[in-house]
Amino acid sequence: MKGIFITIEGPDGAGKTSVIKQLLPMLEETIQQEIVATREPGGSRIAEEIRELILNPENTEMDARTEALLYAAGRRQHLVEKILPALETDKLVICDRFVDSSLAYQGAARGLGVHEVAEINQFATDNLSPDLTLYLDIEAHLGLERINQNKKTRQFDRLDQETLEFHEKVRSAYLEIAKNHVERIVQIDASQELGTVVEQCYQTIIKRLKK
Amino acid sequence: MKGIFITIEGPDGAGKTSVIKQLLPMLEETIQQEIVATREPGGSRIAEEIRELILNPENTEMDARTEALLYAAGRRQHLVEKILPALETDKLVICDRFVDSSLAYQGAARGLGVHEVAEINQFATDNLSPDLTLYLDIEAHLGLERINQNKKTRQFDRLDQETLEFHEKVRSAYLEIAKNHVERIVQIDASQELGTVVEQCYQTIIKRLKK
Repeated sequence: MKGIFITIEGPDGAGKTSVIKQLLPMLEETIQQEIVATREPGGSRIAEEIRELILNPENTEMDARTEALLYAAGRRQHLVEKILPALETDKLVICDRFVDSSLAYQGAARGLGVHEVAEINQFATDNLSPDLTLYLDIEAHLGLERINQNKKTRQFDRLDQETLEFHEKVRSAYLEIAKNHVERIVQIDASQELGTVVEQCYQTIIKRLKK
Repeated sequence: MKGIFITIEGPDGAGKTSVIKQLLPMLEETIQQEIVATREPGGSRIAEEIRELILNPENTEMDARTEALLYAAGRRQHLVEKILPALETDKLVICDRFVDSSLAYQGAARGLGVHEVAEINQFATDNLSPDLTLYLDIEAHLGLERINQNKKTRQFDRLDQETLEFHEKVRSAYLEIAKNHVERIVQIDASQELGTVVEQCYQTIIKRLKK
């Protein structure tokens, strides 16, 4: 047994939260390895403070590069305080969003350049890459419809103000990243019924654990 | 007339603040160009919040890479909100510390690597480099002595807790950077009398303005 690092990625409204909620008890029932489910800022006090800065709707004057650097800073701190200690003690870490999110959102959709944003994130992660990434793929308009249906239960933040066009850029960037990292990223059609998506995620992880 | 970007660099205790205080009125008397004197976070609300995070003495668990990314984020925001608008309206900008500080402190002294820290700062500045940098050189132990003499008038922060060894690394990194950028960086012996240091800074700037 050794530490395994799995990330879940996808555009807004792909259903990551719902999938993880159903996936965790299934994994806990069938595998021996202890599971740590996390997402940035993941209980790191510093990363939490950084996240508040990023998502504060008052920070309308925030530059896109500032935002990308802050995401990388929060990611670093969450990695050091939570992910690395779990991996070092042989746990299975499941993380909701990681570097690919910054590549898609800041690098592609905000136009900073995927390569440039990858560089600052390589600095942040010290080149640590997930062992497996589940990419939950959904068309931008379907994702946005789901978000609007869930508005009552989600806190409205600055990023939700973005347009459909922005979300379309996010999705096409994800598709490109998935195509370029077939050894790490498994693409799953998130427009399917929730149960089907969860089952495919589950089977993909089990297959990876048997390697 | 066009915007000119000058940075003042040096180890702690080199006397940057005292030099700038005397230098500004001398420049204002003799040159026509409007002068903007600034330092990070420089009145940017977002950069100010980032700086508070970095310098909070309670943040002892802050990882060195997180710190470097936060410095780069604050730098970006200060650049966008204050330096670039001043340069675009043909002002002379004098900035107390800039990228070289991160190369010396985070890159060299904290051991993150000068090249790596340069990369994230190239992202932050979008490759903008100062037109002229005055490097106020002082031996680490002399700089620390000055800091200790001024303790009553300076707020004690987390970075002041570092050891002499740390400050020696900072200085030797600065010397290396200055050697590698002779076209941009002018080295000035900051162990001289304050009036002499100010005069040499003044003459260096006047010479550069005549180019």
